[in-house]
Amino acid sequence: MARIVQKFGGTSVGDVERIKNVALKVKAEIDRGNEVAVVLSAMSGETNRLVGLVNQMGSLYDAREYDSVVATGEQITIGLLALALQDLGVSARSWLGWQVPFHTDDVHAKARIQKIDVDELDKRMKTGEVPVVAGFQGIGPDNRITTLGRGGSDTSAVALAAALGADRCDIYTDVDGVYTSDPRIVTKARKLEKITYEEMLEMASLGAKVLQTRAVEMAMKHGQRLQVLSSFEDKPGTLVVDEEEIVEKELVSGIAYSRDEAKITLVRVSDKPGVAAAIFGPLSDASVNVDMIVQNESVAGKATDLTFTVTQADLERAVKTLEKHSDDIGYEKLHSDANVVKISVVGVGMRSHAGVAQRMFATLAEKGINIQVISTSEIKVSVLIDEEYTELALRALHTAYGLDAA
Amino acid sequence: MARIVQKFGGTSVGDVERIKNVALKVKAEIDRGNEVAVVLSAMSGETNRLVGLVNQMGSLYDAREYDSVVATGEQITIGLLALALQDLGVSARSWLGWQVPFHTDDVHAKARIQKIDVDELDKRMKTGEVPVVAGFQGIGPDNRITTLGRGGSDTSAVALAAALGADRCDIYTDVDGVYTSDPRIVTKARKLEKITYEEMLEMASLGAKVLQTRAVEMAMKHGQRLQVLSSFEDKPGTLVVDEEEIVEKELVSGIAYSRDEAKITLVRVSDKPGVAAAIFGPLSDASVNVDMIVQNESVAGKATDLTFTVTQADLERAVKTLEKHSDDIGYEKLHSDANVVKISVVGVGMRSHAGVAQRMFATLAEKGINIQVISTSEIKVSVLIDEEYTELALRALHTAYGLDAA
Repeated sequence: MARIVQKFGGTSVGDVERIKNVALKVKAEIDRGNEVAVVLSAMSGETNRLVGLVNQMGSLYDAREYDSVVATGEQITIGLLALALQDLGVSARSWLGWQVPFHTDDVHAKARIQKIDVDELDKRMKTGEVPVVAGFQGIGPDNRITTLGRGGSDTSAVALAAALGADRCDIYTDVDGVYTSDPRIVTKARKLEKITYEEMLEMASLGAKVLQTRAVEMAMKHGQRLQVLSSFEDKPGTLVVDEEEIVEKELVSGIAYSRDEAKITLVRVSDKPGVAAAIFGPLSDASVNVDMIVQNESVAGKATDLTFTVTQADLERAVKTLEKHSDDIGYEKLHSDANVVKISVVGVGMRSHAGVAQRMFATLAEKGINIQVISTSEIKVSVLIDEEYTELALRALHTAYGLDAA
Repeated sequence: MARIVQKFGGTSVGDVERIKNVALKVKAEIDRGNEVAVVLSAMSGETNRLVGLVNQMGSLYDAREYDSVVATGEQITIGLLALALQDLGVSARSWLGWQVPFHTDDVHAKARIQKIDVDELDKRMKTGEVPVVAGFQGIGPDNRITTLGRGGSDTSAVALAAALGADRCDIYTDVDGVYTSDPRIVTKARKLEKITYEEMLEMASLGAKVLQTRAVEMAMKHGQRLQVLSSFEDKPGTLVVDEEEIVEKELVSGIAYSRDEAKITLVRVSDKPGVAAAIFGPLSDASVNVDMIVQNESVAGKATDLTFTVTQADLERAVKTLEKHSDDIGYEKLHSDANVVKISVVGVGMRSHAGVAQRMFATLAEKGINIQVISTSEIKVSVLIDEEYTELALRALHTAYGLDAA
């Protein structure tokens, strides 16, 4: 007997028929003799509808009211699934965030889970009852409903699985696992049987939308085994596990990409102490997230070019902020370019193998693709290139690292 | 300075623009120097949509899950109104049933309010903050969301007003007050400036849909002054008050009617002790509500005809139940007729004036309308007539009691 937390996303509970399908999946797990808890998102589109209503109410934005309104989406799906399970003869009840409860901090709309009281759920699961738990929501110290931010239901599921000591947390979604690259672009992409937390984390933060970054971080922290699998097909997905569980480590596990990038170059910045702070301080104050940063070596020892990337949504704000502080910073010109893409090669294998980055640069050079910015970490190499080379680069790298399906 | 509870129904909060209109009405009351708490229903149509989803989930019906799902309707409107009020510069926050809390019994889907803790609301209202409270919902002893049954938001508002010691509870709706009769049929119907609790109670239970019966009962019990008024026009409505507040009592306040009636006649029931119990016991067991009952005097001392009314929804069940128990009861024939209407003349004035019933019978006789069943109480006379005479009877009685507008 195993204890499993199953999490179903918005498209999996998108209408009445799909909710009934989810009930069948839960029952199948129960029939295998397992203890099951379920975490649900709102019906796809519902959260956007609710956010739209909130945005129409005026220019002021009270995140506490926002949270209370948008949390209704999950309140509906969990009640409906509990009913569908009862109809199949499975004992089930719904649990709202404040009923479990999921205690969070008071940062409404972006709350973080602090503690989950699972004693009651644990007791009931042992009797065969299925708790159907609202994802995405909790209760703050002010006794008001909080939400975890978009996609927070993955985090709810992992946190609940860890608290319940679950053997596995299954994330059901509309894709059937984690691929070596985006199968819509790279037709030879393969589904991975297993991937490490670290790799999954890099993939998630680099644009692979399969799992929320925070959820993977939490799974890694607690050593919680995860599985990503399809709600519409009945086959195993990809296991996200600790590195030791993977016997045959591949050099590179995947090639990720993110189009949501924009590049800013400050030309001839005076090369003196404190200039980086003069640039990135104001950007931080304006809530601009800076990603890759490259500073060219100063030629004359007096001035240097500085390039960095931000998300496309932040670009305009970043440029305005830098222009406003141009006197303090002291640069000659500012270039910006949104037609860029970040391509990343990810794999724990590169820790022990040299030449991974070199193979990437050589492959791109062969195809005549110019690299604009490079950044590396222990298990990934990312490059910024012109957006029009996205598909070409992905396919070439996929082949170069031997990832193509037979 | 007065303390006022304002309640807005589903059509008053039916979309974003209407919610903003409600915010203006709340602000107007604040600007007059009053303390205001608001109680809201769900957007019109929303509760039906949610009930529809619940009904699609299977044949089993867990009222606790039903409650949690349908309670989301009010959760949305209160959050949106709080935001709209903040946008107008009015300090406001939303309160869910479990946050106030409204303690109820554990009869899910038909719960009754037992106690409202208003200390926190009271304190905040004194600082000028407007509590925007979810109607229709509470929290049961099982720590789960309960609902009060359809139309329960009126009851929530009256209960909250009584607990807060409010000077008045204003029920905003899509009609502008209580009329002497249905203005769609009786064009000379007048809006009443004041009506007593007892009269309003009779009118509500006799088919006038302006206020929920339970809400009026609760107002009467607590002596809570009520006003029924329009959310779309800016003029006074009808005050529902204690009898002493009405100086010029009219003989009759209104003529109500209900088409939701069906008549059952049992022909030649044996006239012996225990026969009434043999008839109405099984009906009660089958949850059939019996309204008017008439037993004709026994001619030969052996058998009698017995007539009574039920709602149209209960008719089929009632007939089946009686047929099943025909041997125990012992009747010759069973007639049923759904083409009937109940017309009622209501007024506290009839306590001190004779001849009110007689004038009703004479007026109907003049128009050639046959009375099938009569029932009376201290402040009302009801008759059952053929449905096709509804309009004729209403207009004739309205004139006969001097209620026509000048």
